[in-house]
Amino acid sequence: MRVRLTIEYDGTNYGGWQRQHNAVTVQEKLEEAIFASTGERVTCTASGRTDAGVHAMGQVVSFETNTAIPAEKLSFVLNTHLPEDIRVMDSAAAPGDFSARFGAKGKTYRYSIFCGRHSSPLRARTHYCIHVQPDIEKMRETARFIVGTHDFRAFCASGSAAKTTVRTVYAVEIFSEGPCIYIEVTGNGFLYNMVRIIAGTLIAVGIGKLTPEEVRRAIEARDRTLTGVTAPPQGLCLLRVYYDERELAERGYKE
Amino acid sequence: MRVRLTIEYDGTNYGGWQRQHNAVTVQEKLEEAIFASTGERVTCTASGRTDAGVHAMGQVVSFETNTAIPAEKLSFVLNTHLPEDIRVMDSAAAPGDFSARFGAKGKTYRYSIFCGRHSSPLRARTHYCIHVQPDIEKMRETARFIVGTHDFRAFCASGSAAKTTVRTVYAVEIFSEGPCIYIEVTGNGFLYNMVRIIAGTLIAVGIGKLTPEEVRRAIEARDRTLTGVTAPPQGLCLLRVYYDERELAERGYKE
Repeated sequence: MRVRLTIEYDGTNYGGWQRQHNAVTVQEKLEEAIFASTGERVTCTASGRTDAGVHAMGQVVSFETNTAIPAEKLSFVLNTHLPEDIRVMDSAAAPGDFSARFGAKGKTYRYSIFCGRHSSPLRARTHYCIHVQPDIEKMRETARFIVGTHDFRAFCASGSAAKTTVRTVYAVEIFSEGPCIYIEVTGNGFLYNMVRIIAGTLIAVGIGKLTPEEVRRAIEARDRTLTGVTAPPQGLCLLRVYYDERELAERGYKE
Repeated sequence: MRVRLTIEYDGTNYGGWQRQHNAVTVQEKLEEAIFASTGERVTCTASGRTDAGVHAMGQVVSFETNTAIPAEKLSFVLNTHLPEDIRVMDSAAAPGDFSARFGAKGKTYRYSIFCGRHSSPLRARTHYCIHVQPDIEKMRETARFIVGTHDFRAFCASGSAAKTTVRTVYAVEIFSEGPCIYIEVTGNGFLYNMVRIIAGTLIAVGIGKLTPEEVRRAIEARDRTLTGVTAPPQGLCLLRVYYDERELAERGYKE
């Protein structure tokens, strides 16, 4: 049976999603919990990797199992074997050809920023604390240049193995809530570090280090040296993965 | 000089505000930071104690010092000596007779609840995770009985040394945000555990264990055995302390 899990994790204490030798990862913890629950050694596929320190509320994972545990009960069993900072929020049977990775039609990430003279203890794990007040209108003006189908090479970390750097960003929504600013980016796929570079670039515009026009030109020039720094991981959270193009369209996420 | 600090803390790792022998407390960490910054051993006064595990965004603290560091620079100096989960967000000189405790005219607390089948890793430090969906309208109906000047003995933990159990609650605001419910309570003062018992009681009504009418009668009877359990500490956060009655009134917080 193919199983689809929706998982949430506080990425603070992990070396990201993907298994590696020199850090504890979410994939490793999840596969260990599956082994403890079913006796099976499986390899899980996530919708995409998340980096060290990045969080997820709606990461989707798929794997194949012969367990007799009904798919919808698996979340409860797995959670008894998972550390508190990783939880399976939902488990369900999926079509035999379902792949969390290759079936993904779109994703929404949120980047969270706290603005204040001092960093905020209650937001330090989940927000990037900056000590200036960005101009949100300038950030929104810049966001309009990012939305659409572009070659996003200017927003891609070097060392990426992506075949093409063309992606479609459906929406970049920026809103403030008290001393915090949230950037929600929805697209059909993202390059390595793309959302963190978008966040770093929008912040740079908000605090006057770049102009909206300079970012527009950086996109055109496909030049990573002209965009902002990669914002730190703790501000990033994978909110949702979409597997149905109709659902994306219904939310207004289309080209 | 009398100094007024506004501090924020993640209470997870502390035995509450007040110094004690068998736990690390916020007061101890703050007084150590003051000693490291000024060389003076002072005793800080907070607007009120917070229990073990309870958080604060706007706790107010006062103390007397002879330091040459200007009051408004103290926050920056103190923060270099504080652990990351405690931060002085603001420091200012205050009138010589200012007392964070005796000058407090009112306080707002927030109680945060996450509702879902599984607990939420990203909210586990700051929300009480419950596995049912409460009826918010029933909670609001009950909140109306709590607002006003009452003898709140039914919402006071035993062992409280309060001279009188009469308090005025100006407002109980309940709102939902996605899978979360927030209860914000503003009053002129609170008995020991009062906000956590209000939260536990409103949740009990929301999930059908108590009726609004039963809570109304419990208040009248001043009977702690008729109200709900004390909700756990991690959901509670001291948001704000008011020292100016005019400010309270301007926000609509009055009898």
